[in-house]
Amino acid sequence: MLEEISTRAPKSADKDKYKQQLQGIVAEISDLQNLLFAENKHAILVVIQGMDASGKDGLIRDVFGGINPQGVQVHSFKAPTPEELEHDFLWRIHQRTPAKGMINVFNRSHYEDVLITRVHGWVDDATAKKRMAAINHFEKLLVEHNNTHILKLYLHVSKKEQLERLKERMSIPEKMWKYNENDFVESQLWDKYMMYYEEVLRQCDAPPWHVIPSDQNWYKSHVVAVLLRDTLRKLKMQYPGMKK
Amino acid sequence: MLEEISTRAPKSADKDKYKQQLQGIVAEISDLQNLLFAENKHAILVVIQGMDASGKDGLIRDVFGGINPQGVQVHSFKAPTPEELEHDFLWRIHQRTPAKGMINVFNRSHYEDVLITRVHGWVDDATAKKRMAAINHFEKLLVEHNNTHILKLYLHVSKKEQLERLKERMSIPEKMWKYNENDFVESQLWDKYMMYYEEVLRQCDAPPWHVIPSDQNWYKSHVVAVLLRDTLRKLKMQYPGMKK
Repeated sequence: MLEEISTRAPKSADKDKYKQQLQGIVAEISDLQNLLFAENKHAILVVIQGMDASGKDGLIRDVFGGINPQGVQVHSFKAPTPEELEHDFLWRIHQRTPAKGMINVFNRSHYEDVLITRVHGWVDDATAKKRMAAINHFEKLLVEHNNTHILKLYLHVSKKEQLERLKERMSIPEKMWKYNENDFVESQLWDKYMMYYEEVLRQCDAPPWHVIPSDQNWYKSHVVAVLLRDTLRKLKMQYPGMKK
Repeated sequence: MLEEISTRAPKSADKDKYKQQLQGIVAEISDLQNLLFAENKHAILVVIQGMDASGKDGLIRDVFGGINPQGVQVHSFKAPTPEELEHDFLWRIHQRTPAKGMINVFNRSHYEDVLITRVHGWVDDATAKKRMAAINHFEKLLVEHNNTHILKLYLHVSKKEQLERLKERMSIPEKMWKYNENDFVESQLWDKYMMYYEEVLRQCDAPPWHVIPSDQNWYKSHVVAVLLRDTLRKLKMQYPGMKK
C-alpha cells in the first residue's frame, strides 16, 4: 500500500510558486492561531511520524516557526525514562496533550509504541492489538472531551532518499551532531517498519492519517501548511466580545 | 529609581532602521539557538515581568516567533491552582526551567510571589524577605548546576501609556478578549507596584534585571533581541563532531 503512494511531488506542483506561497500560508495560520487562543474553544494536536531523516524537524521549523510561540508547544518523544516505564504507555503522552487554544506538535508519539517496539519484537502481536485499541479510545477522549482536532501526518520518504540524507549527516559539520550510527542499523529494518506503518495507517475508527510525500522538503511543508490552515479555517472561529 | 528611567526610546534610536534590522537579528538568534541545541551544554531562561499591557505577549511574538519552535518553550504563569498551592511557591516554577539546549520564556514568573502578593497584602514583609532569599538560591542552583543563563527583563511602561492600552482593549474587536475589568482596579495600585518592583530590581546576589523602555514596541523588541543575541554570542558555542 505505501509502496503505491509516491514519495515525490506531482508534476503539476511548482516549486518556486510553492516556496513563495509558504510564508503567506503560515501568516494566515498565525492569525488563525491567535483567534484559536482568544476563542479558547478548540485544541489542535499535530502528530508527526516518519522514518529517521524523513524531515520531521525541518517541517516543524518551516510550518510552526512562524506562529506565535506562546500558542505552540512542541514535544519530542524519545525512549521512555525509567519513571515513564513504570506507567502505562499513554501516561507521558497524556501530560502533553494540548490545552484549549493551543497547537501542540508531537515529534514522534504514542505510535512508536506500536512501531519501533514491534519491529524489534519488544511487544507481541496481541499486546500491539490491545495498544491500538487503547490508542483509539485515548484519541476519542481528546476529540470528544476537549474539542481536540487531531492531524496525523506520516512523512513518506523513499529508502533511497533516506540513505542519502543519513550519509549527508556524516559530512556536513552543522548536521554531524544528528548522526547516530544506529540509524543505518534501523534503516536495514525498512521493510518491517513499512509493514507496521501500514497497519497503523489502516486504523479506522480514529482521525485518519495523512500520507505526506516528503522526498522534497518544499512540497512536504506546503502540503502540511495547507492542511493545517484548512483545518483551522473550518472551525469558523470568532473573537469573543468583552468578558462581563 | 524607576521614575528616573525613561520609558521611551532615546532620541538617537531610528524607528525605521530598528524595525528593519529586527528580522536579521532574530535570524541570527535562530541560528545560535540551533547551535545551542546541537551543542547541548547551556540553557537559557528569559524571565519577563511588567505591568498589565506592558507588551509581554507582543515581545514574545516579535523576538521568539522567528526561532525554531522545537527549541523554545513559553510558559505563562497565572494564579496558582489548588494543587500548586499545596507546594512551595517555586515547585511549579522548577518544573518549567529549561533543559540544556533550550530557551524557556517565562511570561510572568516566581517574581509575582513577591509582587502582586505584596501589593495586596497577601504576604507580610518577613515572608517576602524569606521568599527573595529562596529565589536567589533557586536561581543560583539553575546557574551553577545546569549552566543556565538567566535574562531578567522588566518591561518599563508609563502609567499613561498603560491606561491608553487598556482603553484600546475595550474598543478593538481583536483585543476585547484580553480586557478584564479588574485591570483598571490593579492600575490604581500603580505606586505600590512600583515600590515593590524597585525592591525586586535591587536584588543583588543574582543575575541582574534589565529595565527595558517599553512605551514603544519597536524599541522594546529591538533592545531585547540584541540582548538575547549578545548573550548567545558570548557562549562561544561550536557544533560537536560525530558521536562515537
